[in-house]
Parts: sequence; C-alpha cells; structure tokens
Amino acid sequence: MTIATRIGYATVHDIFVRGKDLSKDIIPKADFVDMVCLCMLGESPEPNFKRMINVLLVTSTDHGFTPSSMSSRLTYLGAPESLQGAVAAGLLGAGDRYLGATQNVAEMLVTESKGLAADAPQADFDNRAREVLARYKAEKKRIYGVGHPIHVEGDPRVPSLRTISQECGYYRSCWRLLDALENINRTEYGKFLPINGAGAMGAIAADLGLDPKIARGLALVGRTAGLVSHIMEEAVRPTGAEMWSLVLGAETSSELAAQ
Amino acid sequence: MTIATRIGYATVHDIFVRGKDLSKDIIPKADFVDMVCLCMLGESPEPNFKRMINVLLVTSTDHGFTPSSMSSRLTYLGAPESLQGAVAAGLLGAGDRYLGATQNVAEMLVTESKGLAADAPQADFDNRAREVLARYKAEKKRIYGVGHPIHVEGDPRVPSLRTISQECGYYRSCWRLLDALENINRTEYGKFLPINGAGAMGAIAADLGLDPKIARGLALVGRTAGLVSHIMEEAVRPTGAEMWSLVLGAETSSELAAQ
Amino acid sequence: MTIATRIGYATVHDIFVRGKDLSKDIIPKADFVDMVCLCMLGESPEPNFKRMINVLLVTSTDHGFTPSSMSSRLTYLGAPESLQGAVAAGLLGAGDRYLGATQNVAEMLVTESKGLAADAPQADFDNRAREVLARYKAEKKRIYGVGHPIHVEGDPRVPSLRTISQECGYYRSCWRLLDALENINRTEYGKFLPINGAGAMGAIAADLGLDPKIARGLALVGRTAGLVSHIMEEAVRPTGAEMWSLVLGAETSSELAAQ
Amino acid sequence: MTIATRIGYATVHDIFVRGKDLSKDIIPKADFVDMVCLCMLGESPEPNFKRMINVLLVTSTDHGFTPSSMSSRLTYLGAPESLQGAVAAGLLGAGDRYLGATQNVAEMLVTESKGLAADAPQADFDNRAREVLARYKAEKKRIYGVGHPIHVEGDPRVPSLRTISQECGYYRSCWRLLDALENINRTEYGKFLPINGAGAMGAIAADLGLDPKIARGLALVGRTAGLVSHIMEEAVRPTGAEMWSLVLGAETSSELAAQ
Repeated sequence: MTIATRIGYATVHDIFVRGKDLSKDIIPKADFVDMVCLCMLGESPEPNFKRMINVLLVTSTDHGFTPSSMSSRLTYLGAPESLQGAVAAGLLGAGDRYLGATQNVAEMLVTESKGLAADAPQADFDNRAREVLARYKAEKKRIYGVGHPIHVEGDPRVPSLRTISQECGYYRSCWRLLDALENINRTEYGKFLPINGAGAMGAIAADLGLDPKIARGLALVGRTAGLVSHIMEEAVRPTGAEMWSLVLGAETSSELAAQ
Repeated sequence: MTIATRIGYATVHDIFVRGKDLSKDIIPKADFVDMVCLCMLGESPEPNFKRMINVLLVTSTDHGFTPSSMSSRLTYLGAPESLQGAVAAGLLGAGDRYLGATQNVAEMLVTESKGLAADAPQADFDNRAREVLARYKAEKKRIYGVGHPIHVEGDPRVPSLRTISQECGYYRSCWRLLDALENINRTEYGKFLPINGAGAMGAIAADLGLDPKIARGLALVGRTAGLVSHIMEEAVRPTGAEMWSLVLGAETSSELAAQ
Repeated sequence: MTIATRIGYATVHDIFVRGKDLSKDIIPKADFVDMVCLCMLGESPEPNFKRMINVLLVTSTDHGFTPSSMSSRLTYLGAPESLQGAVAAGLLGAGDRYLGATQNVAEMLVTESKGLAADAPQADFDNRAREVLARYKAEKKRIYGVGHPIHVEGDPRVPSLRTISQECGYYRSCWRLLDALENINRTEYGKFLPINGAGAMGAIAADLGLDPKIARGLALVGRTAGLVSHIMEEAVRPTGAEMWSLVLGAETSSELAAQ
Repeated sequence: MTIATRIGYATVHDIFVRGKDLSKDIIPKADFVDMVCLCMLGESPEPNFKRMINVLLVTSTDHGFTPSSMSSRLTYLGAPESLQGAVAAGLLGAGDRYLGATQNVAEMLVTESKGLAADAPQADFDNRAREVLARYKAEKKRIYGVGHPIHVEGDPRVPSLRTISQECGYYRSCWRLLDALENINRTEYGKFLPINGAGAMGAIAADLGLDPKIARGLALVGRTAGLVSHIMEEAVRPTGAEMWSLVLGAETSSELAAQ
C-alpha cells in the first residue's frame, strides 16, 4: 500500500512544499499569503489575486465579541492550560450560519450564475436574480449572504470589498448576481436584506474561481489570528466569568421549571 | 455589570479594530500580517518585525504528513460535512510536544536568558548554557526545541531562520542562548541534539519580545492554512482509509490479547 | 432580555435538573442511563427503553483502532497536556460517514417508513424497500447504514442488536424496513451490502422514537468513554509515533512531486 | 513495524473488547457502566465500585448554563450542521479550572495523602492538612477542589457524595484529607472555602484508586450527555443569539477604545 500527498514531504536533509525547497526557496522569499496560495492552490499568486486573498483574510480576522470569540473565551476560562483548545472551540462555530457561510454563499453564486458572462448586460443579471428569488421562495430555500443582526442598514465592509474587487478586476458574475439579488429583493419584494460580510467574501471567492471550501478555509485562517488575540487579552483582562454571570442574571429557568 | 475588549467592536454603521475603522482604514490598506500584528499586539509592525512574523507564519504552515495533518484527514474521513471540525482536530495537536512547543521554547529562553545582553561575549552565553544544562539534568527537566525524529543530522529550516534573524537585527540573546545550548550539549556532553524548527521559531518569538503564548498562537495561524490544504486534497485524493488500513495491517492486537 | 433552559439551574443552595433536586433526588438514586434519559428526554426511562439506551451506548463505545481513536492518539502525541483536546479530536470524526451516521440512518428510516405500521405484512415492507431502492438509485442517493470495510460478510453486532430489540419490543417499522432494504438489495439487485453497526443503531433509535440527532448524541457519549480508554493506554504504551512512521514509510510523495 | 492495543480489535467475523466477544458476551449482558469499566480499566466492576462510577458520571452530566454548555450553544448557533462540533467545543473547556479539575484534585490528594491510612486517627489528617496548607501558602500554590462562584455557603452535591462514598466503603484517606483541608482552612486560617463538586469527585476518584486522568475522563463522558441535551434544546428553543446580545448590551468597548 502506498500513500501520497502533493503538498509536501520531508527527507532527512530537506523539506519540500509543492516541489520547492522550504528552507532555501520559500522561507527566505515568500510572505505568508504567497505560502497560503502555494499550499492551497499549488502556485504563486499574481499581484491582484494576492491582494484579494489578503482582503479575505483581513476581513475575517476579527471585530470584537462574536459567538466564536465568546466561545473561545469561555473555553479558556475552564481550560487555561490549552491555547489550542480555546482556539479550536472558536473555530468550530465557523459553520453554515456564521463565518463559514462564505462557503455556502460561494456555492450558491457559482451554481446560480452559470452561463452569465462577467460583462453581460445588467438586465441579464436582474432577470437571473428574479428567477432565483422566485425559485428559492417556492422551495423555501434560504438566500445566503444577506441580512445582519447588527448592521441592519448595510454592512460597512461591503462597499470597501466591492471597490477593491473592481480595482483588481475581480468584480465579475458572482458579485454582480449578488448585487442584483439584494437590489431586486428590495425593489420588487420590498425586503431590504443588505449584503453582509460573508456575502461579499463569498462573492469574492467565487469570482476568484476558488473552490467554495477554500472560502471557508480562508475565513478559518483569518479568524484563528483573531481568536488568538482574544485569548491573549482574556489571559490578562478576563471576561469569561462576567459573560457567565450575565447569562445567569438574565436566566428565568427556575420560573420556567415551576410552570 | 460591564464587559469590554480593546480588540474591536461594531456599531450599526461601523466596525472598529484597535480603534481604526475596519472598512475604511484597514481593509483597503493592510495586508494580513499587518492585521495580525494590529489585532494581537495593538499596533502596526515595523518592516523587519513584519518580515519576522511572516517567517514564523510561513515556517509553521505545512510540510506534508504530520500527526496534525493526519488527524485532520482522519477526521474528514468520518465527517466530511464539517471543514472546520477537521481543521480543529488538527490544531488540537499543536501542544507542548509538537508545533505548540514554540511557546515552551520561548518561555524557557526568556527565563534562562535573563540578564544576558544581546551583545554579551560568547563566553557568557556558553557559561549560561553550561549552568542550564547541568540544572535541567539535575532536575530531570527537558530542554525544549532540540532533537527531531526525521532531521537527525540537523533541521534544514534552522540555518535559514538564523540568517534571516541576523539580517533583520533579531538575532539576540534568546537565539544566542539556544545556539550555545546546542553547542555545549554536543561538545561537552557528547549529545548531538540539533535545534529543530520549533526551537528556532521559539527563539525568534522570544527575541521579538513576544509573549510566548503568541509564539504558539502564530503557529496555529500558519498551520490552519496547511490543514485547509490537506483537507482540500483529501476531498479529491483521499488517504484516510489507507492510513487506517496501514495501522490495521501492522496491528498485532489479537496476539497481544491472546497472551 | 431573559434566557431560559428547561434542563437545569443552580441556586445558592440547590441544583435542579429537569425539576428534580440533583443532590437529594438524583445522585443517590439514578444510575447514569437514568440521568442521560432525564437530561436528554426530560423523563425517566421504562426498563425496556432503558435497556435499549444501554445497548446503544455500549455498542458505540469502542473496538480498537478506528479513525476516531487514531485521531485522538495522534493529538495526544503532540499535546499531552490536554486530555479533553485529544478526546475532542476523536469526537470530531463522528460525522455523516462514521459513527455519527446513526443520525443519518435514523433520519432516512423515519422518513421512508412513514405510514408503515410496525406489524404490517412483510410484503408491505418489501414493496416499500423496492420503491426506496429504485428512487435512491435514480436520484443517485446513498442508502445509509449498509456496507462495512472490514465486516464484508456481515457485521457481527447486528444479529445481537436485532435480537435484543425483539426481546424488548422495539423491533418495529424502522428495523423491518432496514432489514427489507438489505434483503431486496441482495435478492433483486444482486448487491450484498449487509447492515452495519451504525445501521442497526440508527434503526433502534428510530424505533425508540428518538429525535435522530439523539442517535448521534448517544454515539458521542459512548465513544467518549472509548476515546478516554485509548488516551489512557497511549499515555503508557504510545502508538502515535509508530502510526506516523507507518504513513511516512508508505509515502511516495517525493515520487509524485517529481512527476 | 508492529502496533497494538489491548482495548480491542476486529476480525472479518468478530469484534473483541478486552478479550471478550463484543456481540455475544458484552452487548447482551453489559450495561454502559460495565462497558466503561471494561474499556478503561480492563475489568468488570464490583457493585460498590460500579455505584461510585455511576455517581461520578451522574454528577458531572449537567446543571444548566455553565461556560461549557454556553460554548456548545454558541458554537451550534454558527454551525448547526455539526452536532459533534458543538459537543467538542463544550468539552474543550473541561480543563484545569472547571470540570477537568477533578483530575487536578485527585492528583493533589493522591500525592498529599501518601502514608496516611484510611483509618488513621483524625489528628493525623488534621496535621497533614496543616502542613499542606502552610506549604501551599508558602509556595503560592492553589488548593484544588474548594470554593465555588455560586454555592458560596457550600456545594449541595458534596454531602450526598460523601454519604454515598461512606455507604460504599470508599470514604478513605483522600476524602478525609480533603475534609480536613476545608476544616483547618476555616478554623485556623479563617477562610471558608467549601469543597466543591470537582473536589468531591476528585476525592472519590482518588479513593477508588483510579488514575487521576480517568477522573477527568469520566467527567468528559458525563458532560457529553449534558452537552447533547443542551444542543437538542438549542435546536428548538435557541438561546445563542440572546447570549450574544446580552454581552453586546453590557459591552463598553467603544468607551474603552476612546480613552
């Protein structure tokens, strides 16, 4: 029985990643995003592509208390001996609903934008959006990548992400379809569900031609850095016990049980 | 009761990270390593410091089949529905013995190099190394960061990492002490335990003045990218079932149980 | 804002679980399976139901080297400081394909057995099985709970699990449909895919009327005990490094990379 | 290279656990706690020992909102596709400070009760407690297993656990030392830090002669059942979003950042 990977391997004297000598050809020359592209995609990125990968990583890194950072902090409260355990607990929440939803958005946009050229007339995108919204409504399927519990009037990251995508030549059919979905939903269905961060990141990943799983994967890389930051802070200015107290203070379980 | 973080927060219209507007001031300007430094350390890095952070991330990303990538692949075999679960399984092995050992090395070097100036004479480092080796031997404590199961004649990453540290002005007391430990152990104790990758990364983290926990944290960020790569490959060219078969093929449990 | 759970709560002087005093009414009287039923289902089990829950827990506990126990052992190799991390790594593989598949089996059987009474004539089950197999084939859907990489002639646990289900009065429509699926697949399609352990456990969970997620949940409880056993053994008779060596020994990555 | 486990193995036709035929000798006869003992310890338990294992599992199962159940619920909020991921996130908090602390208590009691017979005079235990408290104070070490954020006047589980231990003949030197530590701390140091649940469970594990790691392991088994219960409830009566809102409502990060 044999077993193999194209990612890399070590010999007694050398380590190779994607066929390059890690010590001589990668460590002295590559920055981390070059390495991410080499490892995940097998090749070095062109500059605009690299800028977009940076944008995906930066956007998913962190922005304060979220379910994933709360989970990491609560885990660290009980198990301060394991930094990696607290990080893992936070990453496990990067699923279909938060953070990992970039993958679901990318899958939806890749599927639903089939046959639409990046430079097709706007009417084609609007018609496709109408058709998608009607079909999802009929099938009671959820549109991924729109709506946000806090940024109810629009997610501030989205315009920045759109502008950079345009500057880099990656504002293509998936982005255009997502924008059309938001617009038709608002103008014709009367529902204002603005594109959220996961939506924009999913559109970027899809327009970069990435496997949708890589969209979730990049969000995990970025978020790992954010979670480490939270745990470093938790170690010196803890909040875990306060979060627990807040929940216990709002709890009405005893009343519920008495019913 | 109040609760707070200095990392970041969101309002209805804005998101702030370390006091900067994420959408306007960070996403358009920062690359991922800038963001890592901003989040973890609260400030933007100077160029040489940034290069060293890149080097730490690149070095820990991946190099083929390791216990952590094997664990991720075996997890994906049973649970292909959860990319984040497979990544978390791989990260959980980044502990005191592999990968996470960068933290243990950094803690050891920070403690044991106390009082040694970065430009102290070589004899000072040699004497300190003698004292540390004798004390650890007496206390049956383990020297972290030396020895490797594959690279028995020396880890190929170490010379590259040392050279870059010297170029960037971060070859300081922790690096020098680690080099002295390897050298005195070989010349005076007859034990050739060459510095390994975690050793060099721990020395770098310590000479950068990072909290040792950040050394482990950066290794987790880099490795997340490597694990995502393994899972992407596992999805198309699976190895998990073969790994299981290899173990069952080498298994002698029935004989053991019969004893 | 209020928040509540019906599972339990603590006051300064007491702890309640499902409305009972943990210290006075549960700890002195309940065994663990009583507690599992109380917590998960909100009530104490009748004796035959309790026997079936015991059977589900016992069957999922362990049987040697599997992807989940290998993952736990490889994690412990790198991070011996965290028992809970090594257990978590093993549980993360309890997904749609292994172990957690009890949930998928239960969902399939609950859905596909709709309208079939537990004592309906055998011909009704056979016809339903024919219809299901034809439909799944047409839709390229997978039948869960059949086939096994090792027990190719039949999983030895299945006859025991069927007999106990019959003794306890829980051999009902889901079990009967699963048996019919195996039988029709063999006699009319010429495919011998015998029912596996997850299949039988899924049928039991479905015939007990459990939410299918509880099927996966009980498998997690049982397997946690198995994984703890593996880690205890790994701590004194390690195998992790040998598993890694086996994989490196079978590896042909260097040849692959050279292509 | 060979590899082996004494826990179990499978052949084409049979599965063995600890040398017994799983299908014929275990599944039809053993309840889950028999299986836990067989797997972890290699033998069937005598009745009083079995009762104590039941007590350990029951006590650690659940009691409402705790950091571990909060972490599981927050994880499920983001990733409802993975029950096992949400369970793993909750288990990762079972560390040195909460839940997993049973291991730390057991280690402390095993070490510090050396040489004290189970039926030694009370004065011997009091003197040992004095010596331990003085030494830990001098070394700034923490006494494990005492104090609780909610049960400040005494943990209601402790008297029940003590009584059952006495009934079963397992109130021995570790339990007696823990009681003496609480008592001397109160009467001679003026510190009322009552024994908590983890303390009593650690004393039980130690007096049962278990490896302290098994104390943590059993807590993980029990808690897995509790976490599954929480996730089942979260799926129908969600609380995750409310917990997040509570934290955001109490957050003063913007003020902090403005300083």
